[in-house]
Amino acid sequence: MESPRQPNPVLIFEGIQAYQRSAALKAAIELEIFTAIAAGNRTADAIAKTASASTRGIRILCDYLVIQNFLSKNGGQYSLTPESAIFLDKKSPAYFGAAIGFLLDPRLLAAYLNLTEIIRTGKTLTEKGSVAPENPLWIEFARSIAPMMRPAAEEIATLVAGEGELRVLDIAAGHGVFGIAILKQNPKARVTAGAWANVLSVATENAKNAGVANRHTTRPGDAFDVDFGGPYDLVLVTNFFHHFDQQECERLMRKIFAALAPGGRCVTFDFIPNDDRVSPATPAAFAMNMLANTPSGDVYTFSQFENMFRNAGYASSKLHPLMKSPESIVISTKA
Amino acid sequence: MESPRQPNPVLIFEGIQAYQRSAALKAAIELEIFTAIAAGNRTADAIAKTASASTRGIRILCDYLVIQNFLSKNGGQYSLTPESAIFLDKKSPAYFGAAIGFLLDPRLLAAYLNLTEIIRTGKTLTEKGSVAPENPLWIEFARSIAPMMRPAAEEIATLVAGEGELRVLDIAAGHGVFGIAILKQNPKARVTAGAWANVLSVATENAKNAGVANRHTTRPGDAFDVDFGGPYDLVLVTNFFHHFDQQECERLMRKIFAALAPGGRCVTFDFIPNDDRVSPATPAAFAMNMLANTPSGDVYTFSQFENMFRNAGYASSKLHPLMKSPESIVISTKA
Repeated sequence: MESPRQPNPVLIFEGIQAYQRSAALKAAIELEIFTAIAAGNRTADAIAKTASASTRGIRILCDYLVIQNFLSKNGGQYSLTPESAIFLDKKSPAYFGAAIGFLLDPRLLAAYLNLTEIIRTGKTLTEKGSVAPENPLWIEFARSIAPMMRPAAEEIATLVAGEGELRVLDIAAGHGVFGIAILKQNPKARVTAGAWANVLSVATENAKNAGVANRHTTRPGDAFDVDFGGPYDLVLVTNFFHHFDQQECERLMRKIFAALAPGGRCVTFDFIPNDDRVSPATPAAFAMNMLANTPSGDVYTFSQFENMFRNAGYASSKLHPLMKSPESIVISTKA
Repeated sequence: MESPRQPNPVLIFEGIQAYQRSAALKAAIELEIFTAIAAGNRTADAIAKTASASTRGIRILCDYLVIQNFLSKNGGQYSLTPESAIFLDKKSPAYFGAAIGFLLDPRLLAAYLNLTEIIRTGKTLTEKGSVAPENPLWIEFARSIAPMMRPAAEEIATLVAGEGELRVLDIAAGHGVFGIAILKQNPKARVTAGAWANVLSVATENAKNAGVANRHTTRPGDAFDVDFGGPYDLVLVTNFFHHFDQQECERLMRKIFAALAPGGRCVTFDFIPNDDRVSPATPAAFAMNMLANTPSGDVYTFSQFENMFRNAGYASSKLHPLMKSPESIVISTKA
């Protein structure tokens, strides 16, 4: 008996052409289409004039964005979706369009043009991929990803910042927004931000802009080698463990353990899929990024994190999903 | 009042990263993952061994393909979806994985790395883009797209081939499968296939393989300049009009009109969206391909086709959706 559903070749055709969605979003953000529409330009002609672009180009681009649910269209007039209004209009406080600077950085994309070879050999294009020491890619990351991370950073701060004295170590801080959110939430907190020296200047600048520079200090260096100082009440490891294999993660967890005060907590912010490793879609799919651009990175389930933290000496680990992010946090406590 | 739906930044994050879907499908087709699974290899280890690839790479790739609905996963075992079983297993008669050769050709992808500039200027990267004379890209097209087009070609042949003598002109024939399907359906039909000389050899080879070479002749040259000969009872214009603006389309329609016998028909096979130009998704979205790689190409609605054919002298045009393709046909009749 045949399957009741007729197999649809269009699914595969659309999958093969999915790269066009990335390119269209990038072009629309760079041409500030969403900002132009928010400002009241509703027709292809008006948007093209505002964007100093060709009308045919804008018309086809905007129709494409409607098809992909990033715009709406009614009687030839374009309008924003709830998502594009909040996150892609430059005048919106939650704008994060700049994230394409990192997410579509040519140094990351190069791997996807060679993905077959990477999967065949199990090796990244360059020896250490995106985790090579002092990789300038992370300056782009620090600069362009901060706005995308702020909602999660604030949510985490609400959960862990408390009210009393709090000595915080922000590992591989990059843009620094996770530590900065804690400083803004708790006026008695102090943050030491670690990262490669070339990246830390971005965190320092963000701390200055947030008015918390006097409680924000830095310790430049590679997280695996640098002297953390301490002891700390709280260590933040945000978007970091996924770059490494389990052995390396455990090594870092031990080093953090040693820098924690008794009862101190390590907060892991990461893409954490279910045990099936294919759900929820966003955290599970993130593994592809690690395959493409790191020698041994991956996403880890909560069971895997729990196990690694236990091996590293922590008394307990708890999983907390977040409202404002597809990533979750694990809070691991030193007894 | 706030919208009842919480705006979800993940939609935008996933849109920006959509290019990974294309890269993953390409890698899976090139590594023959679907063929390996069809042959009974169900675990990452077994598939990696068959594909001579790294287990970590295959595991992350296969999980990603599950998330994107191109594989299923159950208890750590992978299996094919109805679509991947039919269209992506090399042993399946309907296999069309080779289509990535054209659809992901680096010469086409280059435009998407520069889409902002193309939209701004309204100009393709090279003066004529993919429609430059004798562009070798179309040899890759002719070679790799044929299997994807066969179901539609057969469906169209059923509609128009009839039983009697039939003189057919297959314009810009490429792989030639549309004319060849008519030759197989109607033993009294004769096809003249036109295309640039460098591409026509593929059509000739396909006609030979289909056992219809004795009724398949060629007329090399650019469709806009070549002498069509004739008269013909049927002219096929498949995947062609979308490369040109309406003025150019009408010019070609007139030239075809002159080559048609009285009562002859012109059959247009193309991506034809509704009047809103944003539905159905696949034909509407196809315009992006034309924006990226042609100076003035586009998708045309049936109203636009009807109007152009009327201007070119045709008595009537009728739209026929197809079961086996997201493209449709328009049959236009010379009075």
